[in-house]
Amino acid sequence: MSLIGGGPGAWDLITVRGLQRLQAADIIFVDHLGPAHQLENYGVDTQKIVDVGKLPYSAHISQEKINSLMGEAAREGKKVVRLKGGDPYIFGRGFEEVLSLEKEGFYVEVIPGISSTIAVPALNRVPLSMRGVVHNFTVISGHVPPGHPSSLNNWEALAHTQGTLVIIMGVKNAGSIANSLIEYGMDPHIPVAIISEGTRENEQSYRTCLQELGQCVKENNIKPPAVIVIGKVVSL
Amino acid sequence: MSLIGGGPGAWDLITVRGLQRLQAADIIFVDHLGPAHQLENYGVDTQKIVDVGKLPYSAHISQEKINSLMGEAAREGKKVVRLKGGDPYIFGRGFEEVLSLEKEGFYVEVIPGISSTIAVPALNRVPLSMRGVVHNFTVISGHVPPGHPSSLNNWEALAHTQGTLVIIMGVKNAGSIANSLIEYGMDPHIPVAIISEGTRENEQSYRTCLQELGQCVKENNIKPPAVIVIGKVVSL
Repeated sequence: MSLIGGGPGAWDLITVRGLQRLQAADIIFVDHLGPAHQLENYGVDTQKIVDVGKLPYSAHISQEKINSLMGEAAREGKKVVRLKGGDPYIFGRGFEEVLSLEKEGFYVEVIPGISSTIAVPALNRVPLSMRGVVHNFTVISGHVPPGHPSSLNNWEALAHTQGTLVIIMGVKNAGSIANSLIEYGMDPHIPVAIISEGTRENEQSYRTCLQELGQCVKENNIKPPAVIVIGKVVSL
Repeated sequence: MSLIGGGPGAWDLITVRGLQRLQAADIIFVDHLGPAHQLENYGVDTQKIVDVGKLPYSAHISQEKINSLMGEAAREGKKVVRLKGGDPYIFGRGFEEVLSLEKEGFYVEVIPGISSTIAVPALNRVPLSMRGVVHNFTVISGHVPPGHPSSLNNWEALAHTQGTLVIIMGVKNAGSIANSLIEYGMDPHIPVAIISEGTRENEQSYRTCLQELGQCVKENNIKPPAVIVIGKVVSL
């Protein structure tokens, strides 16, 4: 079994190793991964793709069901590939899948993918690090707002790292995240980039500053998936 | 001109797009990139590789000289590729190269690479994020120690993000970084992974805890390049 990171969107940003496994696979399980049919341009038999985000009669398929489908195929002797967007271990629940499949006795090979958190800014002229400017960057899941009981982010500390902040899954909470960071002492005028649908045909890129972030998301009706970058590197 | 991230070490972890550019290139400029000759196994003409880390009579070649060599080749009408390890924008000075080449009028295409900061931990069973455990991770250059006048890292804030810390270029300063983090309130018993020469044949992996980090590096005589991961995700 292989767990493969598909990269940020464009299929030619998958790794060579990842593509080789896809080409050799007997069955490929994907989530809502965008234009999976375009993989046929890369020698992948798209008949072998099973979209576990779109099974009939099932609006949302459970992780247990995905694992059991994968286990079943592996027991039939099939070469099973699990394809995820970005990198499987960056907020992708990939490690959870590996742990539960290992419990059932399967060996899972992991093949990293290009994470949109790094590549999408890079392809928009935003390097997350820059000699003499920033020596660190933090990637943050913004799926719960600051102060929420299940938040595991210390936004006060994050406001003071002196590094670049990259927020994913944070479109909905962009305004409250910006307000928190400013409250904790971050410069309200620090530049911000927002890139939605990165590397895809419908990619959109916006520039604003921290205190205008919430407004910018609203006015432009920005939808997920989007990567938000906060830091001096945005205006280099 | 293309600026390509070569990935963490193993060549089949380069992207499909990156490999295509290497195969079509007329000249390929690399740093000390390890076994560049093995690219011949991937259809790349290794006669076209120029190691700008090893030019004759030049222990250390300046960035200006590299840019001028690249510009010269491009003006001759050659397809020029600049190949860097990992991702070109993650502590790789890639953006500096792009800016100076653009100043000379060249268009530079950037192709991201798998960053060792994410992939090397992942391939060692260390996911940087995990649902319910951490919602952020910070990648830090540890090339100057805490308190150094040219340090751009706020180690006090970094000790409190509640996220995973990934330190690269920090082998030499591992002990002083650990001491600072503990001084600023980080749990001395938090688990640490150190992986040297990640994804290469001579990869070595170590497990320790924060207060033993400096000692572990010394005792095992760990040399760069190495990725150090500090956080609960190490012992999942």
